[in-house]
Amino acid sequence: MTGNIFTSLPKKSATEVFDILLQNKNIKIERIVSQGHTSPAEGWYDQDGNEWVLVLEGDGAIFFEDGRQVMLNKGDFLHIPAHEKHKVSWTDLGKQTVWLAVHYPS
Amino acid sequence: MTGNIFTSLPKKSATEVFDILLQNKNIKIERIVSQGHTSPAEGWYDQDGNEWVLVLEGDGAIFFEDGRQVMLNKGDFLHIPAHEKHKVSWTDLGKQTVWLAVHYPS
Repeated sequence: MTGNIFTSLPKKSATEVFDILLQNKNIKIERIVSQGHTSPAEGWYDQDGNEWVLVLEGDGAIFFEDGRQVMLNKGDFLHIPAHEKHKVSWTDLGKQTVWLAVHYPS
Repeated sequence: MTGNIFTSLPKKSATEVFDILLQNKNIKIERIVSQGHTSPAEGWYDQDGNEWVLVLEGDGAIFFEDGRQVMLNKGDFLHIPAHEKHKVSWTDLGKQTVWLAVHYPS
Protein backbone atom coordinates (compact mmCIF):
# COMPACT_ATOMS: atom_id res chain seq x y z
CA MET A 1 0.00 0.00 0.00
CA THR A 2 3.07 2.25 -0.03
CA GLY A 3 5.47 3.10 -2.80
CA ASN A 4 6.85 5.87 -4.93
CA ILE A 5 5.02 6.94 -8.04
CA PHE A 6 8.14 8.16 -9.82
CA THR A 7 10.24 5.04 -9.33
CA SER A 8 10.08 1.87 -11.40
CA LEU A 9 8.96 3.77 -14.45
CA PRO A 10 8.73 1.41 -17.40
CA LYS A 11 11.08 1.64 -20.34
CA LYS A 12 9.57 2.81 -23.59
CA SER A 13 6.77 0.42 -24.33
CA ALA A 14 4.66 -0.41 -27.36
CA THR A 15 1.57 0.36 -25.30
CA GLU A 16 0.59 2.48 -22.32
CA VAL A 17 1.55 0.91 -19.00
CA PHE A 18 -1.07 0.75 -16.23
CA ASP A 19 -0.14 0.09 -12.59
CA ILE A 20 -2.83 -0.17 -9.92
CA LEU A 21 -1.72 1.58 -6.72
CA LEU A 22 -4.88 0.99 -4.71
CA GLN A 23 -8.09 -0.88 -5.44
CA ASN A 24 -11.12 -1.81 -3.44
CA LYS A 25 -14.88 -1.57 -3.89
CA ASN A 26 -14.93 2.20 -3.40
CA ILE A 27 -11.89 3.34 -5.35
CA LYS A 28 -9.23 2.46 -7.89
CA ILE A 29 -6.08 4.57 -8.13
CA GLU A 30 -3.69 3.86 -10.96
CA ARG A 31 -0.56 5.23 -12.54
CA ILE A 32 -0.53 5.35 -16.32
CA VAL A 33 2.67 5.94 -18.28
CA SER A 34 2.35 7.05 -21.90
CA GLN A 35 4.90 8.05 -24.49
CA GLY A 36 3.38 8.97 -27.81
CA HIS A 37 0.46 6.61 -27.19
CA THR A 38 -3.18 7.28 -27.74
CA SER A 39 -5.95 5.16 -26.26
CA PRO A 40 -8.16 3.29 -26.54
CA ALA A 41 -7.02 1.76 -29.83
CA GLU A 42 -10.50 2.17 -31.27
CA GLY A 43 -13.62 3.99 -30.18
CA TRP A 44 -14.06 5.68 -26.82
CA TYR A 45 -13.59 5.14 -23.13
CA ASP A 46 -17.16 4.89 -21.81
CA GLN A 47 -16.82 4.25 -18.08
CA ASP A 48 -19.47 3.26 -15.54
CA GLY A 49 -17.68 5.25 -12.82
CA ASN A 50 -16.27 8.74 -12.46
CA GLU A 51 -12.61 9.51 -13.03
CA TRP A 52 -10.32 12.27 -11.77
CA VAL A 53 -7.04 12.56 -13.61
CA LEU A 54 -3.85 14.48 -12.81
CA VAL A 55 -0.77 14.82 -15.01
CA LEU A 56 2.31 14.32 -12.82
CA GLU A 57 4.88 14.56 -15.60
CA GLY A 58 4.71 15.28 -19.31
CA ASP A 59 1.88 16.42 -21.53
CA GLY A 60 -1.22 14.87 -23.00
CA ALA A 61 -4.55 15.67 -24.58
CA ILE A 62 -8.02 14.27 -24.02
CA PHE A 63 -10.65 14.45 -26.70
CA PHE A 64 -14.35 14.25 -25.88
CA GLU A 65 -17.19 12.98 -28.03
CA ASP A 66 -18.75 16.44 -27.96
CA GLY A 67 -15.72 17.84 -29.79
CA ARG A 68 -13.79 19.38 -26.90
CA GLN A 69 -10.07 18.74 -26.73
CA VAL A 70 -8.36 19.48 -23.44
CA MET A 71 -4.58 19.89 -23.34
CA LEU A 72 -3.09 18.76 -20.04
CA ASN A 73 0.39 19.77 -18.90
CA LYS A 74 2.25 18.91 -15.71
CA GLY A 75 0.02 19.57 -12.72
CA ASP A 76 -3.23 19.87 -14.66
CA PHE A 77 -6.21 17.93 -13.36
CA LEU A 78 -9.57 17.13 -14.88
CA HIS A 79 -12.78 15.39 -13.80
CA ILE A 80 -14.43 13.01 -16.24
CA PRO A 81 -17.96 12.02 -15.20
CA ALA A 82 -19.21 8.49 -15.82
CA HIS A 83 -20.20 7.81 -19.41
CA GLU A 84 -18.63 10.99 -20.74
CA LYS A 85 -17.05 9.38 -23.76
CA HIS A 86 -13.41 10.34 -24.20
CA LYS A 87 -10.05 9.21 -25.50
CA VAL A 88 -6.42 10.08 -24.98
CA SER A 89 -5.85 11.77 -28.32
CA TRP A 90 -2.19 12.73 -27.90
CA THR A 91 0.77 12.25 -25.58
CA ASP A 92 4.30 13.55 -25.97
CA LEU A 93 6.54 11.20 -27.97
CA GLY A 94 9.74 12.77 -26.65
CA LYS A 95 9.25 12.05 -22.97
CA GLN A 96 7.10 10.01 -20.63
CA THR A 97 3.76 11.32 -19.48
CA VAL A 98 2.82 10.07 -16.01
CA TRP A 99 -0.87 10.22 -15.16
CA LEU A 100 -2.57 9.63 -11.85
CA ALA A 101 -6.11 8.36 -12.39
CA VAL A 102 -8.60 8.09 -9.52
CA HIS A 103 -11.71 6.06 -10.37
CA TYR A 104 -14.67 6.13 -8.00
CA PRO A 105 -18.35 5.18 -8.11
CA SER A 106 -20.91 7.51 -9.64
CA MET B 1 -13.42 20.95 -11.94
CA THR B 2 -10.16 21.69 -13.79
CA GLY B 3 -7.02 23.44 -12.66
CA ASN B 4 -3.32 23.03 -12.01
CA ILE B 5 -2.11 21.66 -8.72
CA PHE B 6 1.21 23.50 -8.85
CA THR B 7 -0.13 26.97 -9.57
CA SER B 8 -1.57 29.38 -7.01
CA LEU B 9 0.59 27.95 -4.27
CA PRO B 10 0.10 29.97 -1.10
CA LYS B 11 2.81 32.15 0.33
CA LYS B 12 4.32 30.98 3.58
CA SER B 13 1.44 30.68 5.99
CA ALA B 14 1.10 30.37 9.74
CA THR B 15 -0.89 27.20 9.19
CA GLU B 16 -1.22 24.46 6.60
CA VAL B 17 -3.33 25.47 3.61
CA PHE B 18 -6.09 23.11 2.42
CA ASP B 19 -7.73 23.45 -1.00
CA ILE B 20 -10.52 21.13 -2.06
CA LEU B 21 -10.12 20.09 -5.70
CA LEU B 22 -13.13 17.77 -5.89
CA GLN B 23 -15.83 16.86 -3.41
CA ASN B 24 -19.02 14.87 -3.57
CA LYS B 25 -20.62 12.10 -1.52
CA ASN B 26 -18.16 9.47 -2.75
CA ILE B 27 -14.85 11.33 -2.67
CA LYS B 28 -12.92 14.35 -1.49
CA ILE B 29 -9.65 15.26 -3.14
CA GLU B 30 -7.62 18.06 -1.62
CA ARG B 31 -4.26 19.73 -1.96
CA ILE B 32 -2.45 20.47 1.29
CA VAL B 33 0.54 22.80 1.42
CA SER B 34 2.81 22.60 4.48
CA GLN B 35 6.06 24.32 5.37
CA GLY B 36 7.38 23.33 8.73
CA HIS B 37 3.87 22.66 10.00
CA THR B 38 2.68 19.72 11.99
CA SER B 39 -0.97 18.81 12.40
CA PRO B 40 -3.35 18.53 14.05
CA ALA B 41 -2.38 21.04 16.71
CA GLU B 42 -3.26 18.58 19.44
CA GLY B 43 -4.10 14.91 19.50
CA TRP B 44 -4.63 12.76 16.42
CA TYR B 45 -6.44 12.67 13.12
CA ASP B 46 -9.10 10.00 13.65
CA GLN B 47 -11.07 9.86 10.41
CA ASP B 48 -14.32 8.07 9.60
CA GLY B 49 -13.17 7.49 6.02
CA ASN B 50 -10.08 6.11 4.33
CA GLU B 51 -7.33 8.35 3.00
CA TRP B 52 -4.71 7.89 0.30
CA VAL B 53 -1.95 10.46 0.33
CA LEU B 54 0.77 11.30 -2.21
CA VAL B 55 3.63 13.76 -1.74
CA LEU B 56 3.92 15.83 -4.92
CA GLU B 57 6.71 18.13 -3.73
CA GLY B 58 8.80 18.33 -0.58
CA ASP B 59 9.14 16.01 2.38
CA GLY B 60 7.03 15.12 5.39
CA ALA B 61 6.57 12.51 8.07
CA ILE B 62 3.48 10.82 9.45
CA PHE B 63 3.42 9.38 12.92
CA PHE B 64 0.94 6.69 13.93
CA GLU B 65 -0.49 5.94 17.33
CA ASP B 66 1.15 2.51 17.26
CA GLY B 67 4.58 4.15 17.16
CA ARG B 68 5.40 3.89 13.47
CA GLN B 69 6.83 6.97 11.78
CA VAL B 70 6.77 7.03 7.98
CA MET B 71 9.02 9.45 6.11
CA LEU B 72 7.51 10.56 2.83
CA ASN B 73 9.54 12.15 0.06
CA LYS B 74 8.51 13.38 -3.37
CA GLY B 75 6.44 10.72 -5.10
CA ASP B 76 5.81 8.60 -2.02
CA PHE B 77 2.26 7.45 -1.39
CA LEU B 78 0.58 5.88 1.62
CA HIS B 79 -2.84 4.49 2.50
CA ILE B 80 -4.34 5.40 5.86
CA PRO B 81 -7.39 3.29 6.76
CA ALA B 82 -10.31 4.86 8.61
CA HIS B 83 -9.70 5.37 12.32
CA GLU B 84 -5.98 4.67 12.09
CA LYS B 85 -4.93 7.53 14.33
CA HIS B 86 -2.11 9.59 12.87
CA LYS B 87 -0.57 13.02 12.74
CA VAL B 88 1.74 14.96 10.46
CA SER B 89 4.76 14.95 12.75
CA TRP B 90 7.19 16.87 10.54
CA THR B 91 7.37 18.82 7.29
CA ASP B 92 10.35 20.58 5.76
CA LEU B 93 10.73 24.15 6.96
CA GLY B 94 12.98 25.14 4.06
CA LYS B 95 10.52 24.50 1.24
CA GLN B 96 6.88 23.80 0.60
CA THR B 97 5.53 20.28 0.84
CA VAL B 98 2.57 19.72 -1.48
CA TRP B 99 0.35 16.77 -0.59
CA LEU B 100 -2.47 15.23 -2.57
CA ALA B 101 -5.02 13.64 -0.24
CA VAL B 102 -7.83 11.42 -1.54
CA HIS B 103 -10.54 10.70 1.02
CA TYR B 104 -13.13 8.03 0.28
CA PRO B 105 -15.71 6.03 2.24
CA SER B 106 -14.69 3.00 4.23
